Amino acid sequence: MADIPTAAISRLVTYLRILEQLESNEVSRTSSNDLAERAGVTAFQVRKDLAYFGRFGTRGMGYTVPLLKRELMRVLGLNQTWNVVIIGTGRLGQAIANYPGASDYRFQYVGLFDINPELIGKEVRGLSVKHIGSLSEFVQEKANTSGRVDMGFIAVPPEQAQAAAQTLVEAGVKGILNFAPIVIQPRTLERAGLHEPADEWHGVIIENVDFLAGMKRLAFYILNPHLKITDTEEHA
Amino acid sequence: MADIPTAAISRLVTYLRILEQLESNEVSRTSSNDLAERAGVTAFQVRKDLAYFGRFGTRGMGYTVPLLKRELMRVLGLNQTWNVVIIGTGRLGQAIANYPGASDYRFQYVGLFDINPELIGKEVRGLSVKHIGSLSEFVQEKANTSGRVDMGFIAVPPEQAQAAAQTLVEAGVKGILNFAPIVIQPRTLERAGLHEPADEWHGVIIENVDFLAGMKRLAFYILNPHLKITDTEEHA
Repeated sequence: MADIPTAAISRLVTYLRILEQLESNEVSRTSSNDLAERAGVTAFQVRKDLAYFGRFGTRGMGYTVPLLKRELMRVLGLNQTWNVVIIGTGRLGQAIANYPGASDYRFQYVGLFDINPELIGKEVRGLSVKHIGSLSEFVQEKANTSGRVDMGFIAVPPEQAQAAAQTLVEAGVKGILNFAPIVIQPRTLERAGLHEPADEWHGVIIENVDFLAGMKRLAFYILNPHLKITDTEEHA
Repeated sequence: MADIPTAAISRLVTYLRILEQLESNEVSRTSSNDLAERAGVTAFQVRKDLAYFGRFGTRGMGYTVPLLKRELMRVLGLNQTWNVVIIGTGRLGQAIANYPGASDYRFQYVGLFDINPELIGKEVRGLSVKHIGSLSEFVQEKANTSGRVDMGFIAVPPEQAQAAAQTLVEAGVKGILNFAPIVIQPRTLERAGLHEPADEWHGVIIENVDFLAGMKRLAFYILNPHLKITDTEEHA
Protein backbone atom coordinates (compact mmCIF):
# COMPACT_ATOMS: atom_id res chain seq x y z
CA MET A 1 0.00 0.00 0.00
CA ALA A 2 1.34 3.42 -0.91
CA ASP A 3 2.10 5.81 1.90
CA ILE A 4 -1.21 7.28 3.02
CA PRO A 5 -1.27 10.43 5.15
CA THR A 6 -2.88 10.19 8.56
CA ALA A 7 -5.11 13.11 7.55
CA ALA A 8 -6.56 10.96 4.77
CA ILE A 9 -7.54 8.27 7.27
CA SER A 10 -9.30 10.87 9.41
CA ARG A 11 -11.18 12.07 6.34
CA LEU A 12 -12.21 8.52 5.47
CA VAL A 13 -13.79 8.26 8.90
CA THR A 14 -15.64 11.52 8.15
CA TYR A 15 -16.83 10.21 4.78
CA LEU A 16 -18.06 7.04 6.48
CA ARG A 17 -20.08 9.07 8.94
CA ILE A 18 -21.61 11.06 6.10
CA LEU A 19 -22.51 7.87 4.27
CA GLU A 20 -24.21 6.50 7.37
CA GLN A 21 -26.22 9.69 7.69
CA LEU A 22 -27.23 9.48 4.02
CA GLU A 23 -28.19 5.84 4.45
CA SER A 24 -30.32 6.59 7.49
CA ASN A 25 -32.03 9.31 5.45
CA GLU A 26 -32.63 6.70 2.73
CA VAL A 27 -30.47 8.52 0.21
CA SER A 28 -29.02 5.90 -2.10
CA ARG A 29 -26.63 7.88 -4.29
CA THR A 30 -23.93 10.45 -3.71
CA SER A 31 -21.03 12.07 -5.53
CA SER A 32 -17.59 13.38 -4.74
CA ASN A 33 -19.05 16.90 -4.85
CA ASP A 34 -21.76 15.98 -2.38
CA LEU A 35 -19.36 14.22 -0.01
CA ALA A 36 -16.95 17.11 -0.35
CA GLU A 37 -19.52 19.71 0.60
CA ARG A 38 -20.64 17.75 3.62
CA ALA A 39 -17.08 17.02 4.70
CA GLY A 40 -15.80 20.54 4.19
CA VAL A 41 -13.14 19.53 1.66
CA THR A 42 -12.76 19.70 -2.10
CA ALA A 43 -14.16 17.05 -4.45
CA PHE A 44 -10.60 16.54 -5.65
CA GLN A 45 -9.58 15.62 -2.10
CA VAL A 46 -12.42 13.13 -1.80
CA ARG A 47 -11.45 11.38 -5.02
CA LYS A 48 -7.79 11.39 -4.09
CA ASP A 49 -8.51 9.90 -0.67
CA LEU A 50 -10.69 7.14 -2.10
CA ALA A 51 -8.18 6.41 -4.83
CA TYR A 52 -5.66 5.20 -2.24
CA PHE A 53 -7.91 2.22 -1.66
CA GLY A 54 -9.39 1.29 -4.99
CA ARG A 55 -11.77 2.26 -7.71
CA PHE A 56 -15.19 3.19 -6.41
CA GLY A 57 -18.26 4.41 -8.15
CA THR A 58 -18.71 5.16 -11.80
CA ARG A 59 -17.12 8.15 -13.46
CA GLY A 60 -19.75 10.77 -14.05
CA MET A 61 -22.34 8.83 -12.07
CA GLY A 62 -21.09 9.07 -8.52
CA TYR A 63 -21.32 6.37 -5.89
CA THR A 64 -23.95 4.05 -4.51
CA VAL A 65 -24.21 4.91 -0.82
CA PRO A 66 -24.50 1.41 0.71
CA LEU A 67 -21.73 0.06 -1.51
CA LEU A 68 -19.31 2.86 -0.78
CA LYS A 69 -20.13 2.66 2.91
CA ARG A 70 -19.40 -1.06 2.91
CA GLU A 71 -16.11 -0.51 1.10
CA LEU A 72 -14.99 2.16 3.54
CA MET A 73 -15.88 -0.08 6.46
CA ARG A 74 -13.76 -2.81 4.91
CA VAL A 75 -10.85 -0.42 4.35
CA LEU A 76 -11.05 0.87 7.91
CA GLY A 77 -11.12 -2.63 9.35
CA LEU A 78 -14.68 -2.34 10.59
CA ASN A 79 -15.96 -5.60 9.14
CA GLN A 80 -14.39 -7.63 11.90
CA THR A 81 -14.93 -7.83 15.61
CA TRP A 82 -12.77 -5.76 17.92
CA ASN A 83 -12.68 -6.71 21.59
CA VAL A 84 -12.23 -3.71 23.83
CA VAL A 85 -11.51 -3.17 27.51
CA ILE A 86 -12.13 0.16 29.19
CA ILE A 87 -9.79 1.38 31.92
CA GLY A 88 -11.51 3.90 34.13
CA THR A 89 -15.20 3.47 34.81
CA GLY A 90 -16.16 6.85 36.21
CA ARG A 91 -18.56 9.06 34.30
CA LEU A 92 -16.43 9.20 31.17
CA GLY A 93 -15.73 5.48 31.03
CA GLN A 94 -19.41 4.73 31.54
CA ALA A 95 -20.37 7.29 28.91
CA ILE A 96 -18.00 5.58 26.47
CA ALA A 97 -19.38 2.14 27.32
CA ASN A 98 -22.93 3.38 26.79
CA TYR A 99 -22.35 5.50 23.71
CA PRO A 100 -24.57 4.16 20.91
CA GLY A 101 -23.14 2.80 17.74
CA ALA A 102 -19.98 1.00 18.78
CA SER A 103 -21.59 -2.37 18.16
CA ASP A 104 -22.57 -1.23 14.64
CA TYR A 105 -18.86 -1.36 13.94
CA ARG A 106 -18.47 -4.62 15.85
CA PHE A 107 -16.63 -3.07 18.75
CA GLN A 108 -17.44 -5.22 21.77
CA TYR A 109 -16.70 -4.12 25.28
CA VAL A 110 -15.48 -7.27 26.98
CA GLY A 111 -14.12 -5.90 30.23
CA LEU A 112 -14.14 -2.84 32.46
CA PHE A 113 -11.36 -2.06 34.90
CA ASP A 114 -10.76 0.49 37.61
CA ILE A 115 -8.55 1.20 40.58
CA ASN A 116 -11.25 2.77 42.73
CA PRO A 117 -12.61 0.26 45.26
CA GLU A 118 -16.01 1.94 45.16
CA LEU A 119 -16.38 1.09 41.49
CA ILE A 120 -15.17 -2.51 41.62
CA GLY A 121 -18.11 -4.83 41.13
CA LYS A 122 -20.35 -2.12 39.63
CA GLU A 123 -22.44 -3.35 36.72
CA VAL A 124 -22.11 -1.41 33.50
CA ARG A 125 -23.62 -2.73 30.26
CA GLY A 126 -23.83 -6.19 31.75
CA LEU A 127 -20.16 -6.22 32.73
CA SER A 128 -18.86 -6.15 36.25
CA VAL A 129 -16.02 -3.72 36.89
CA LYS A 130 -12.82 -5.51 37.86
CA HIS A 131 -9.69 -4.29 39.53
CA ILE A 132 -6.97 -3.10 37.15
CA GLY A 133 -4.55 -5.53 38.79
CA SER A 134 -6.42 -8.40 37.16
CA LEU A 135 -6.15 -7.02 33.63
CA SER A 136 -3.22 -9.10 32.42
CA GLU A 137 -4.74 -12.28 33.69
CA PHE A 138 -8.04 -11.35 32.07
CA VAL A 139 -6.40 -10.76 28.70
CA GLN A 140 -4.52 -14.06 28.98
CA GLU A 141 -7.71 -15.95 29.73
CA LYS A 142 -9.47 -14.29 26.83
CA ALA A 143 -6.62 -15.27 24.53
CA ASN A 144 -6.99 -18.86 25.66
CA THR A 145 -10.73 -19.03 25.25
CA SER A 146 -12.92 -16.64 23.30
CA GLY A 147 -10.34 -14.57 21.49
CA ARG A 148 -7.90 -11.78 21.95
CA VAL A 149 -8.41 -8.39 23.56
CA ASP A 150 -7.49 -5.95 20.82
CA MET A 151 -7.89 -2.49 22.28
CA GLY A 152 -7.89 -0.64 25.55
CA PHE A 153 -9.68 2.65 26.04
CA ILE A 154 -8.29 4.88 28.75
CA ALA A 155 -10.73 7.08 30.66
CA VAL A 156 -8.83 7.80 33.86
CA PRO A 157 -7.60 11.08 35.35
CA PRO A 158 -4.55 12.51 33.58
CA GLU A 159 -2.06 11.55 36.28
CA GLN A 160 -3.05 7.89 35.96
CA ALA A 161 -3.15 7.70 32.18
CA GLN A 162 0.44 6.71 31.47
CA ALA A 163 0.38 3.95 34.05
CA ALA A 164 -2.90 2.69 32.57
CA ALA A 165 -1.26 2.65 29.16
CA GLN A 166 1.72 0.74 30.50
CA THR A 167 -0.60 -1.82 32.06
CA LEU A 168 -2.43 -2.26 28.76
CA VAL A 169 0.82 -2.71 26.88
CA GLU A 170 2.06 -5.30 29.35
CA ALA A 171 -1.28 -7.09 29.12
CA GLY A 172 -0.76 -7.46 25.38
CA VAL A 173 -3.34 -5.25 23.68
CA LYS A 174 -2.58 -4.05 20.17
CA GLY A 175 -4.03 -0.59 20.39
CA ILE A 176 -4.86 2.10 22.89
CA LEU A 177 -7.41 4.88 22.57
CA ASN A 178 -6.67 7.52 25.16
CA PHE A 179 -9.51 9.81 26.27
CA ALA A 180 -7.58 11.28 29.21
CA PRO A 181 -6.50 14.91 28.92
CA ILE A 182 -2.83 14.13 28.38
CA VAL A 183 -0.95 12.92 25.32
CA ILE A 184 0.50 9.43 25.71
CA GLN A 185 3.37 8.41 23.51
CA PRO A 186 5.81 5.54 23.91
CA ARG A 187 8.70 7.96 24.31
CA THR A 188 6.75 9.76 27.01
CA LEU A 189 6.85 6.64 29.08
CA GLU A 190 10.55 6.28 28.49
CA ARG A 191 11.18 9.79 29.74
CA ALA A 192 8.91 9.24 32.71
CA GLY A 193 11.26 6.45 33.67
CA LEU A 194 8.53 3.87 33.62
CA HIS A 195 10.62 1.45 31.62
CA GLU A 196 13.61 1.09 29.34
CA PRO A 197 13.51 1.84 25.61
CA ALA A 198 10.20 0.72 24.39
CA ASP A 199 10.67 -2.88 23.37
CA GLU A 200 7.26 -4.01 24.39
CA TRP A 201 5.72 -0.85 22.93
CA HIS A 202 6.78 -1.82 19.45
CA GLY A 203 3.66 -2.38 17.48
CA VAL A 204 1.24 -0.94 20.01
CA ILE A 205 -0.75 1.79 18.35
CA ILE A 206 -1.77 4.76 20.45
CA GLU A 207 -4.47 7.21 19.42
CA ASN A 208 -4.94 10.23 21.66
CA VAL A 209 -8.39 11.82 21.63
CA ASP A 210 -8.51 15.57 22.16
CA PHE A 211 -11.84 15.67 23.96
CA LEU A 212 -11.88 19.47 24.01
CA ALA A 213 -10.98 19.93 20.33
CA GLY A 214 -14.58 20.49 19.24
CA MET A 215 -15.19 23.34 21.64
CA LYS A 216 -11.97 25.05 20.61
CA ARG A 217 -12.95 24.85 16.95
CA LEU A 218 -16.41 26.13 17.80
CA ALA A 219 -14.96 29.18 19.53
CA PHE A 220 -12.94 30.00 16.41
CA TYR A 221 -15.91 29.65 14.09
CA ILE A 222 -18.20 31.73 16.27
CA LEU A 223 -15.64 34.51 15.92
CA ASN A 224 -15.07 33.78 12.21
CA PRO A 225 -18.37 32.45 10.88
CA HIS A 226 -17.50 33.22 7.26
CA LEU A 227 -14.81 30.53 7.42
CA LYS A 228 -17.01 27.72 8.59
CA ILE A 229 -18.58 26.37 5.44
CA THR A 230 -16.17 25.52 2.73
CA ASP A 231 -12.71 24.15 2.33
CA THR A 232 -10.85 26.16 -0.25
CA GLU A 233 -7.45 24.53 0.05
CA GLU A 234 -5.98 24.31 -3.40
CA HIS A 235 -4.69 21.00 -4.56
CA ALA A 236 -2.22 20.39 -7.34
CA MET B 1 -8.76 37.28 6.44
CA ALA B 2 -7.91 35.00 3.52
CA ASP B 3 -9.97 31.88 3.07
CA ILE B 4 -8.68 29.34 5.54
CA PRO B 5 -9.56 25.67 5.13
CA THR B 6 -11.44 24.02 7.97
CA ALA B 7 -8.71 21.38 8.06
CA ALA B 8 -6.19 24.08 8.96
CA ILE B 9 -8.29 25.11 11.97
CA SER B 10 -8.38 21.51 13.14
CA ARG B 11 -4.62 21.34 12.81
CA LEU B 12 -4.20 24.55 14.80
CA VAL B 13 -6.12 22.90 17.63
CA THR B 14 -3.71 19.95 17.38
CA TYR B 15 -0.67 22.26 17.46
CA LEU B 16 -2.10 23.98 20.53
CA ARG B 17 -2.46 20.66 22.31
CA ILE B 18 1.14 19.79 21.46
CA LEU B 19 2.34 23.16 22.78
CA GLU B 20 0.48 22.58 26.03
CA GLN B 21 2.12 19.20 26.38
CA LEU B 22 5.54 20.73 25.72
CA GLU B 23 4.86 23.46 28.24
CA SER B 24 3.79 20.98 30.89
CA ASN B 25 7.04 19.09 30.22
CA GLU B 26 8.91 22.39 30.67
CA VAL B 27 10.14 22.42 27.10
CA SER B 28 10.54 26.05 26.10
CA ARG B 29 11.42 25.85 22.41
CA THR B 30 10.09 24.01 19.40
CA SER B 31 10.32 24.08 15.62
CA SER B 32 8.07 23.45 12.65
CA ASN B 33 9.84 20.09 12.24
CA ASP B 34 9.15 19.18 15.85
CA LEU B 35 5.51 20.25 15.71
CA ALA B 36 5.14 18.46 12.39
CA GLU B 37 6.45 15.18 13.70
CA ARG B 38 4.20 15.29 16.73
CA ALA B 39 1.17 16.32 14.68
CA GLY B 40 1.72 13.78 11.92
CA VAL B 41 1.99 16.40 9.17
CA THR B 42 4.82 17.99 7.19
CA ALA B 43 6.81 20.96 8.45
CA PHE B 44 5.67 22.77 5.33
CA GLN B 45 2.06 22.27 6.44
CA VAL B 46 2.81 23.63 9.90
CA ARG B 47 4.40 26.78 8.51
CA LYS B 48 1.63 27.25 5.99
CA ASP B 49 -1.04 26.90 8.66
CA LEU B 50 0.63 29.38 10.98
CA ALA B 51 1.22 31.82 8.13
CA TYR B 52 -2.52 32.34 7.77
CA PHE B 53 -2.45 34.14 11.08
CA GLY B 54 0.80 36.04 11.24
CA ARG B 55 4.53 35.78 11.55
CA PHE B 56 5.61 33.60 14.42
CA GLY B 57 9.01 32.55 15.60
CA THR B 58 12.35 33.39 14.12
CA ARG B 59 13.51 31.90 10.86
CA GLY B 60 16.06 29.23 11.56
CA MET B 61 15.47 29.43 15.29
CA GLY B 62 12.01 27.98 15.69
CA TYR B 63 9.39 29.12 18.17
CA THR B 64 9.19 29.92 21.85
CA VAL B 65 6.61 27.52 23.25
CA PRO B 66 4.72 29.82 25.63
CA LEU B 67 4.61 32.62 23.07
CA LEU B 68 3.36 30.46 20.24
CA LYS B 69 0.83 28.84 22.56
CA ARG B 70 -0.48 32.25 23.59
CA GLU B 71 -0.73 33.33 19.96
CA LEU B 72 -2.66 30.23 18.96
CA MET B 73 -5.02 30.70 21.87
CA ARG B 74 -5.63 34.25 20.71
CA VAL B 75 -6.22 33.13 17.12
CA LEU B 76 -8.62 30.42 18.23
CA GLY B 77 -10.57 32.82 20.43
CA LEU B 78 -9.52 31.17 23.65
CA ASN B 79 -8.43 34.30 25.47
CA GLN B 80 -12.00 35.26 26.27
CA THR B 81 -14.71 33.71 28.36
CA TRP B 82 -17.23 31.42 26.73
CA ASN B 83 -20.42 30.69 28.63
CA VAL B 84 -21.74 27.22 27.92
CA VAL B 85 -24.93 25.34 28.68
CA ILE B 86 -25.12 21.56 28.44
CA ILE B 87 -28.30 19.90 27.20
CA GLY B 88 -28.50 16.33 28.44
CA THR B 89 -27.08 15.52 31.84
CA GLY B 90 -26.84 11.74 31.73
CA ARG B 91 -23.46 10.07 31.87
CA LEU B 92 -22.12 11.82 28.78
CA GLY B 93 -23.31 15.28 29.78
CA GLN B 94 -21.85 14.83 33.25
CA ALA B 95 -18.61 13.50 31.77
CA ILE B 96 -18.38 16.63 29.62
CA ALA B 97 -19.14 18.91 32.56
CA ASN B 98 -16.44 17.21 34.61
CA TYR B 99 -13.78 16.82 31.92
CA PRO B 100 -10.66 18.66 33.09
CA GLY B 101 -9.26 21.56 31.18
CA ALA B 102 -12.28 23.46 29.90
CA SER B 103 -11.71 26.25 32.38
CA ASP B 104 -8.09 26.55 31.17
CA TYR B 105 -9.62 27.85 27.97
CA ARG B 106 -12.15 29.94 29.91
CA PHE B 107 -15.10 27.80 28.98
CA GLN B 108 -17.55 28.16 31.84
CA TYR B 109 -20.50 25.87 32.28
CA VAL B 110 -23.29 28.16 33.39
CA GLY B 111 -26.31 25.90 33.09
CA LEU B 112 -27.33 22.27 32.74
CA PHE B 113 -30.63 21.21 31.22
CA ASP B 114 -32.51 17.98 30.80
CA ILE B 115 -35.93 16.61 29.99
CA ASN B 116 -35.75 13.67 32.40
CA PRO B 117 -37.63 14.42 35.64
CA GLU B 118 -35.24 12.18 37.57
CA LEU B 119 -32.32 14.42 36.67
CA ILE B 120 -33.96 17.78 37.32
CA GLY B 121 -32.49 19.31 40.44
CA LYS B 122 -29.41 17.06 40.40
CA GLU B 123 -26.21 18.86 41.38
CA VAL B 124 -23.38 18.64 38.90
CA ARG B 125 -20.29 20.83 39.29
CA GLY B 126 -22.18 23.15 41.58
CA LEU B 127 -25.00 23.64 39.10
CA SER B 128 -28.52 22.38 39.54
CA VAL B 129 -30.02 20.67 36.51
CA LYS B 130 -33.00 22.58 35.14
CA HIS B 131 -35.78 21.56 32.82
CA ILE B 132 -35.12 22.22 29.14
CA GLY B 133 -38.34 24.22 28.98
CA SER B 134 -36.68 26.95 31.01
CA LEU B 135 -33.70 27.35 28.69
CA SER B 136 -34.89 30.39 26.75
CA GLU B 137 -35.81 32.25 29.90
CA PHE B 138 -32.45 31.31 31.41
CA VAL B 139 -30.56 32.68 28.42
CA GLN B 140 -32.63 35.87 28.50
CA GLU B 141 -31.90 36.39 32.17
CA LYS B 142 -28.21 35.79 31.61
CA ALA B 143 -28.20 38.34 28.81
CA ASN B 144 -29.75 40.89 31.17
CA THR B 145 -27.37 40.26 34.04
CA SER B 146 -24.04 38.50 33.88
CA GLY B 147 -23.53 38.11 30.17
CA ARG B 148 -24.60 36.08 27.23
CA VAL B 149 -24.78 32.33 26.83
CA ASP B 150 -22.53 31.63 23.86
CA MET B 151 -22.62 27.90 23.29
CA GLY B 152 -24.79 24.86 23.87
CA PHE B 153 -23.38 21.36 24.08
CA ILE B 154 -25.77 18.59 23.15
CA ALA B 155 -25.41 15.26 24.97
CA VAL B 156 -28.82 13.71 24.49
CA PRO B 157 -29.91 10.51 22.74
CA PRO B 158 -29.85 10.77 18.93
CA GLU B 159 -33.61 11.03 18.52
CA GLN B 160 -33.69 14.12 20.76
CA ALA B 161 -30.68 15.88 19.30
CA GLN B 162 -32.33 17.94 16.58
CA ALA B 163 -35.03 19.20 18.93
CA ALA B 164 -32.33 20.14 21.44
CA ALA B 165 -30.54 22.06 18.71
CA GLN B 166 -33.73 23.86 17.73
CA THR B 167 -34.30 24.83 21.37
CA LEU B 168 -30.77 26.21 21.61
CA VAL B 169 -31.18 28.21 18.41
CA GLU B 170 -34.46 29.67 19.60
CA ALA B 171 -32.85 30.54 22.93
CA GLY B 172 -30.25 32.59 21.08
CA VAL B 173 -26.93 30.77 21.45
CA LYS B 174 -24.27 31.45 18.84
CA GLY B 175 -22.82 27.98 18.58
CA ILE B 176 -23.70 24.36 19.14
CA LEU B 177 -21.36 21.46 19.84
CA ASN B 178 -23.18 18.24 19.20
CA PHE B 179 -21.94 15.07 20.93
CA ALA B 180 -25.00 12.99 20.02
CA PRO B 181 -24.49 10.22 17.46
CA ILE B 182 -26.28 12.02 14.65
CA VAL B 183 -25.19 14.85 12.39
CA ILE B 184 -27.15 18.07 12.90
CA GLN B 185 -27.22 20.62 10.14
CA PRO B 186 -29.56 23.54 9.61
CA ARG B 187 -30.90 21.99 6.44
CA THR B 188 -31.55 18.78 8.37
CA LEU B 189 -34.00 20.64 10.51
CA GLU B 190 -35.66 22.12 7.45
CA ARG B 191 -36.17 18.70 5.96
CA ALA B 192 -37.44 17.34 9.25
CA GLY B 193 -40.17 19.92 9.00
CA LEU B 194 -39.22 21.57 12.24
CA HIS B 195 -39.37 25.01 10.74
CA GLU B 196 -39.28 27.01 7.55
CA PRO B 197 -36.05 27.92 5.74
CA ALA B 198 -33.54 28.62 8.39
CA ASP B 199 -33.87 32.29 9.14
CA GLU B 200 -33.01 31.99 12.78
CA TRP B 201 -30.29 29.50 12.02
CA HIS B 202 -28.34 32.08 10.11
CA GLY B 203 -25.18 32.66 11.99
CA VAL B 204 -25.53 29.74 14.39
CA ILE B 205 -22.43 27.59 14.09
CA ILE B 206 -22.83 23.85 14.50
CA GLU B 207 -19.91 21.52 15.16
CA ASN B 208 -20.71 17.82 15.17
CA VAL B 209 -18.39 15.61 17.21
CA ASP B 210 -17.84 12.09 15.91
CA PHE B 211 -17.38 10.42 19.28
CA LEU B 212 -16.49 7.09 17.68
CA ALA B 213 -13.94 8.49 15.20
CA GLY B 214 -10.94 7.62 17.35
CA MET B 215 -11.81 3.96 17.63
CA LYS B 216 -12.38 3.69 13.90
CA ARG B 217 -8.97 5.22 13.22
CA LEU B 218 -7.41 2.91 15.78
CA ALA B 219 -8.86 -0.15 14.02
CA PHE B 220 -7.31 0.97 10.75
CA TYR B 221 -3.88 1.59 12.27
CA ILE B 222 -3.85 -1.73 14.13
CA LEU B 223 -4.31 -3.38 10.74
CA ASN B 224 -1.86 -1.01 9.02
CA PRO B 225 0.72 -0.06 11.66
CA HIS B 226 3.29 1.05 9.10
CA LEU B 227 1.02 3.97 8.18
CA LYS B 228 0.63 5.37 11.65
CA ILE B 229 3.68 7.54 12.14
CA THR B 230 4.33 9.96 9.39
CA ASP B 231 2.41 12.18 7.05
CA THR B 232 3.90 11.96 3.61
CA GLU B 233 1.35 14.05 1.74
CA GLU B 234 3.19 16.10 -0.81
CA HIS B 235 2.56 19.79 -0.87
CA ALA B 236 3.15 22.11 -3.78
